[in-house]
Amino acid sequence: MKILFFAGSLRKDSYNKKFVREAQRAASAIKGIETDFLDLKDFPMPPYDGDIEDGPGIPEATKKLGARIMAADALVIATPEYNGSIPGTLKNVIDWLSREDTVSLENKPLLLLAASPGALGGVRVLWQARVPFEVIGTHVFPGMMGLPGAAAAFDDQGHLKDEKTAKRLNDLINQFVEYHRT
Amino acid sequence: MKILFFAGSLRKDSYNKKFVREAQRAASAIKGIETDFLDLKDFPMPPYDGDIEDGPGIPEATKKLGARIMAADALVIATPEYNGSIPGTLKNVIDWLSREDTVSLENKPLLLLAASPGALGGVRVLWQARVPFEVIGTHVFPGMMGLPGAAAAFDDQGHLKDEKTAKRLNDLINQFVEYHRT
Amino acid sequence: MKILFFAGSLRKDSYNKKFVREAQRAASAIKGIETDFLDLKDFPMPPYDGDIEDGPGIPEATKKLGARIMAADALVIATPEYNGSIPGTLKNVIDWLSREDTVSLENKPLLLLAASPGALGGVRVLWQARVPFEVIGTHVFPGMMGLPGAAAAFDDQGHLKDEKTAKRLNDLINQFVEYHRT
Amino acid sequence: MKILFFAGSLRKDSYNKKFVREAQRAASAIKGIETDFLDLKDFPMPPYDGDIEDGPGIPEATKKLGARIMAADALVIATPEYNGSIPGTLKNVIDWLSREDTVSLENKPLLLLAASPGALGGVRVLWQARVPFEVIGTHVFPGMMGLPGAAAAFDDQGHLKDEKTAKRLNDLINQFVEYHRT
Repeated sequence: MKILFFAGSLRKDSYNKKFVREAQRAASAIKGIETDFLDLKDFPMPPYDGDIEDGPGIPEATKKLGARIMAADALVIATPEYNGSIPGTLKNVIDWLSREDTVSLENKPLLLLAASPGALGGVRVLWQARVPFEVIGTHVFPGMMGLPGAAAAFDDQGHLKDEKTAKRLNDLINQFVEYHRT
Repeated sequence: MKILFFAGSLRKDSYNKKFVREAQRAASAIKGIETDFLDLKDFPMPPYDGDIEDGPGIPEATKKLGARIMAADALVIATPEYNGSIPGTLKNVIDWLSREDTVSLENKPLLLLAASPGALGGVRVLWQARVPFEVIGTHVFPGMMGLPGAAAAFDDQGHLKDEKTAKRLNDLINQFVEYHRT
Repeated sequence: MKILFFAGSLRKDSYNKKFVREAQRAASAIKGIETDFLDLKDFPMPPYDGDIEDGPGIPEATKKLGARIMAADALVIATPEYNGSIPGTLKNVIDWLSREDTVSLENKPLLLLAASPGALGGVRVLWQARVPFEVIGTHVFPGMMGLPGAAAAFDDQGHLKDEKTAKRLNDLINQFVEYHRT
Repeated sequence: MKILFFAGSLRKDSYNKKFVREAQRAASAIKGIETDFLDLKDFPMPPYDGDIEDGPGIPEATKKLGARIMAADALVIATPEYNGSIPGTLKNVIDWLSREDTVSLENKPLLLLAASPGALGGVRVLWQARVPFEVIGTHVFPGMMGLPGAAAAFDDQGHLKDEKTAKRLNDLINQFVEYHRT
């Protein structure tokens, strides 16, 4: 079983990139799990515009991203919360991906995570972000995890400082893998 | 009272541009109402990236758009529905606008419309799109209007063919104006 | 694989009871599928009140319903839409069920349906109703089906008059079964 | 301007009853504001059932509650969060109220609060509970307030122990009154 990990933000020092890297490490420790990681910054897409689609067509970056998703059996995405909901940047990626003839997100199991500097840990985006994926036919895992206080949550190596938090992430990754492996 | 109208899509022949133009015409017929219209295609912004904000800074297009919103007393936005929710393109505009020191959307009355070629008239995006605006502090009007079958709804002059639909839009615009004028 | 079917409404002539009965018939035709049906009217519960829980305790009807859910491998629920969202009646049942020591809804696959006399077929409740189930840990199937114009949709035997609609329901039931059987 | 305050729970020692009482005290201190308070326990309604409506009719408690709401210019409701969303008990009250010929909630300004023993302060119910009210035409204020750790938040007199929290509530009440008074 191969799982692809990425964050819904572009920023180099993104908390969500760190968070999803920790999730990847937890998954890598599970026997039989292969992991892949990508940075959305390497897949630049303009804001969706029907005139681009009708003219130059679907961006190459979309096709490459779709192929990487296609090659995975499951996804783990960590997303920031912008204005209580899904970042335009991430939703734009979903919108472009949904225009391909074969939609890579369809029927794919997905685990959603969110890291936020605030006290609520991105709980609003977790619930908002489920919708477009589920409309496409992605199987979004009911369990999710928000990380509050993300600015102070990681050490210099990018590891979660708090043991309980690390354990919670590890347990969730294991539940996700267990459910979809059987 | 000055109302600014725009659509949440970029496409030249966008149904939502037609729909919001009809809304503008309805508003223009009300005594004491001044209207403004803009096309988001004239305000190009890259997908939000914290490194852009920290480097080159907030895009000029965002500042210009913010100023136009600031100059209006109320907004009417017609949005397409992509994957059952807000277009990344429109959410990205909101995300950038929310980064300005003075957030133009705060406390602004907003009427949401949606046009869709499908049978449901974009009802899902209407409810999804309220959230980021309300998080910012925009006063989203409870009444909204979705237009199903948008591909066949307009005549060559861009007018709504169906009289009842045109009347419904007209009534809603009048209710919105009435509520915020007093 | 045993699937339990019920509607989220109490009314004797409920469109959703008819709709879920049609779903049950479609499932019964699948080899290896056993079905169960219940009427929430036979499981009367007062509106949730912490003082009832602390005093007389969880209602007998809740316990009986929980046991029936427990005995099933999957659920199909058809719900009406009240005020654009989940009926208080159905949410109340969920709230009571969630107070049991072993929560019968946890990890249970669920297919959501909605029938509505209106044109939108209950699409808003479908998306609203997912949330409490997913918070509990129910695996809500991404595919759902809303039935518009429910008042005229059934013949005297309670069968869907429109063949395409019946086929859509049948296909969805088969997809749901297929996904969870393997 | 007369504001009616109530909680979305029935429990005698409900955190939300305490929270909404604090909100009432804050409002009472504003010049020109008259307040009313009610306990939903005094307005018992069965779970909504179309057969009850068609037979005995809308419950007396619904009519009395509707009249109290009608007599107020604005509402403040504090709601618990059950399973990440609106309590069935509160939604049921909304469902019954929406069946009256004149719907008391229509066009009424509403401020939503939530108290929860957990760390997230009921933020999910705040966003979920907006929907049915807005569908009815209630003007739900964009600003809302969730109170985390509610079990330890009040002193013996039912006052908020933390000064900053009390100030936040007071500021929000003042903003709500200010917006709707002018």
